[in-house]
Amino acid sequence: MKVEKIDEMIAPNHKGLGLLTTPLDPADIGSLGWNLLREDISLPVAVLYQDKLQHNLRWMQRFIAEYDMKLAPHGKTTMTPRLFEMQLQGGAWGITLATAHQTRIAYVHGVRRVLMANQLVGRQNMAIVSDLLRDRAFDYYCLVDSSENIDHLGTFFHAAGQRLQVLIELGADGGRTGVRDNEQLKSLLATLDRWRGTILLSGVEFFEGVFDDEALIRRLAERAVHVTGELLRQNRFDRRPPILTGAGSSWYDLVAEVFSSTGLGDQVEAVLRPGCYLTHDVGIYRRAQERILAHNPIAQRMHSGLVPAMQVWAYVQSVPEQEKAIVTLGKRDAAFDAGLPSPALHYRPGSAAPVTASAHWNLTRMMDQHAFLHIDAGDDIRVGDMIGFDISHPCLTFDKWRVLPILNAEYQVIDMVQTYF
Amino acid sequence: MKVEKIDEMIAPNHKGLGLLTTPLDPADIGSLGWNLLREDISLPVAVLYQDKLQHNLRWMQRFIAEYDMKLAPHGKTTMTPRLFEMQLQGGAWGITLATAHQTRIAYVHGVRRVLMANQLVGRQNMAIVSDLLRDRAFDYYCLVDSSENIDHLGTFFHAAGQRLQVLIELGADGGRTGVRDNEQLKSLLATLDRWRGTILLSGVEFFEGVFDDEALIRRLAERAVHVTGELLRQNRFDRRPPILTGAGSSWYDLVAEVFSSTGLGDQVEAVLRPGCYLTHDVGIYRRAQERILAHNPIAQRMHSGLVPAMQVWAYVQSVPEQEKAIVTLGKRDAAFDAGLPSPALHYRPGSAAPVTASAHWNLTRMMDQHAFLHIDAGDDIRVGDMIGFDISHPCLTFDKWRVLPILNAEYQVIDMVQTYF
Repeated sequence: MKVEKIDEMIAPNHKGLGLLTTPLDPADIGSLGWNLLREDISLPVAVLYQDKLQHNLRWMQRFIAEYDMKLAPHGKTTMTPRLFEMQLQGGAWGITLATAHQTRIAYVHGVRRVLMANQLVGRQNMAIVSDLLRDRAFDYYCLVDSSENIDHLGTFFHAAGQRLQVLIELGADGGRTGVRDNEQLKSLLATLDRWRGTILLSGVEFFEGVFDDEALIRRLAERAVHVTGELLRQNRFDRRPPILTGAGSSWYDLVAEVFSSTGLGDQVEAVLRPGCYLTHDVGIYRRAQERILAHNPIAQRMHSGLVPAMQVWAYVQSVPEQEKAIVTLGKRDAAFDAGLPSPALHYRPGSAAPVTASAHWNLTRMMDQHAFLHIDAGDDIRVGDMIGFDISHPCLTFDKWRVLPILNAEYQVIDMVQTYF
Repeated sequence: MKVEKIDEMIAPNHKGLGLLTTPLDPADIGSLGWNLLREDISLPVAVLYQDKLQHNLRWMQRFIAEYDMKLAPHGKTTMTPRLFEMQLQGGAWGITLATAHQTRIAYVHGVRRVLMANQLVGRQNMAIVSDLLRDRAFDYYCLVDSSENIDHLGTFFHAAGQRLQVLIELGADGGRTGVRDNEQLKSLLATLDRWRGTILLSGVEFFEGVFDDEALIRRLAERAVHVTGELLRQNRFDRRPPILTGAGSSWYDLVAEVFSSTGLGDQVEAVLRPGCYLTHDVGIYRRAQERILAHNPIAQRMHSGLVPAMQVWAYVQSVPEQEKAIVTLGKRDAAFDAGLPSPALHYRPGSAAPVTASAHWNLTRMMDQHAFLHIDAGDDIRVGDMIGFDISHPCLTFDKWRVLPILNAEYQVIDMVQTYF
């Protein structure tokens, strides 16, 4: 498969745009002078705030650097190559992804190191990766947790005359993927032995985000450290240093602490993979961050924490009952699986600036294209008012948008990024 | 805004494709010879089955025709202009949509009658519609349920020197949008009077799908009939015949029955708006259809009902525990808000044909990119197997895909359609 740079022009056929008649280079977006508060944009729209993005970008890079580890932000959160670029320029070691398709999108946008924190399964998915590996400069890793999968990969990549770098995935009962016990691990290693020269054992991985038991997560991380140490002693890795990697967006502090106390030092390349830090949220990840700020000495030294950098704006379209307003915001526009969006700002077109939304306003229900906002009788809220919602779960908000404007502090559209889900 | 035909070429940068190196005309997809079972497609993928789509298309058109009513399928379900085209060629009166953006997408793909079953709110949204209305052949309707909204619309379209056709939306307490009582209705009519010549009262609308109480739904439909009759007698409509419209995908039978017993006959244009019938599902809409088949004499005479025409296929990527398989299917790939996808078919690459999935298999959890499949110890399921899932809630499955292959009965890709969310 020949890989081509994807057309980056912004087509006029997306929601959340202003008046656009022909495809436009994102670099020219700023010159259009669109302003959210002047109603230059068709709502609903998901927006990113430039200052807050930059703050979060620097915060996480510094946090990881304090631990002397590498950051491979999970790109599946945003699937926005322009944000990958920002992360890499900010110091990220590589981009983590979840599928062959996502890997291809990253590659054609210039990413040259991908940790695919998932199994690579299926003929066409292997073909996608195989095609990218024709570029020797492309540094790619995927996970293995079964002999069957290793045999499939071995057969495919051997026939292609290529080598594939893999990490052993460790897991725990009640979890997702990953080798559960030492017997399975031994069997996996035996299978890897049979594919030496084709399937290159390059490290050890786990994903703790499926659990919420801190002790269990610590044990899983410690087991990964232990297994990595053992395999180092047995000289079983094809990569020096081998990669030791874990950590999604909720427990990166704990994983960093365990990794930093391994005593393995420079013998391993320790890679952490949070993804949601870039936009943060006011739901699941704010709660996670509160725990981190309460316990982690490095996070405490950094004073300010992550800030929510994404909002979804919508109109009040109806106030049909004294305690109910209907808003032009639906399940098509924002995540709803980890708490509904939370009204943060209230703006009446023509007024000076948004004000903080009433604390008692909250969404009680979302349908495909509508949300039900609980208000109190007599609240000053009118049809045509704009509400800015904070969100919970950025991953499932990003994937509802093909373009997202980036705003400055004056709500001016200074840039626009495209997603590739 | 100049309106241009959107580029229909299929870009290689979508998930759920086979090997594609350059943008391709959908008309050429069939000639590639892709077959799902030969693993020519990168999974996960959402597919449509041609025969079943055609069956559903004909079924609903015939059902509505038996009642001598018009069908304006809700296009927000699929946002797939090629499917709009099929629906219109099949006899649909127009396409129902939910937003100005969706209306624009339909227009640029050739749809010339849109019932926007929603309020039109906000300067840029009005500008989108205003631009489309420069084409006098474009027949567009939106809903009003407040004087404030009518004033905004009146001001905007009067300044633009244009006329806007609106339907009064009726609602009920506990519901979504819509005028609740006669006093509000009187006030709305007074506001409409002030904008005569600019805002054209063209009919009466309601949406019953927000309720699940049959008696309440019947009362709402009867009220719509009553109000329409009153306004006809008062000669208040700017359109002859006025539109009388209701019905989503769950209660179209009940609404058809109420409308057909109005005695209004040709004095109104009765329009029903189901959307999910085209793909149907095995969840919320199958349950709705079971009620319809049990009660509606016309549906009973038609013998066969709607059939599920959409599936999402994914690989088994790991079988980490005796009673658990992990599948490459996530919240990014299928709706999960009205029941999780349901395993229907099981195919081992290289075998003759898919077999029915074990009845005791079921999804217990979904994450962004993974699903947890409950199996029994000893079940014949392996890494690399393909599972075809039926879905519940097509709207929130379509919006996770930018392209969807259409398969024939041999799982050959014979066409491909694009979504515009």
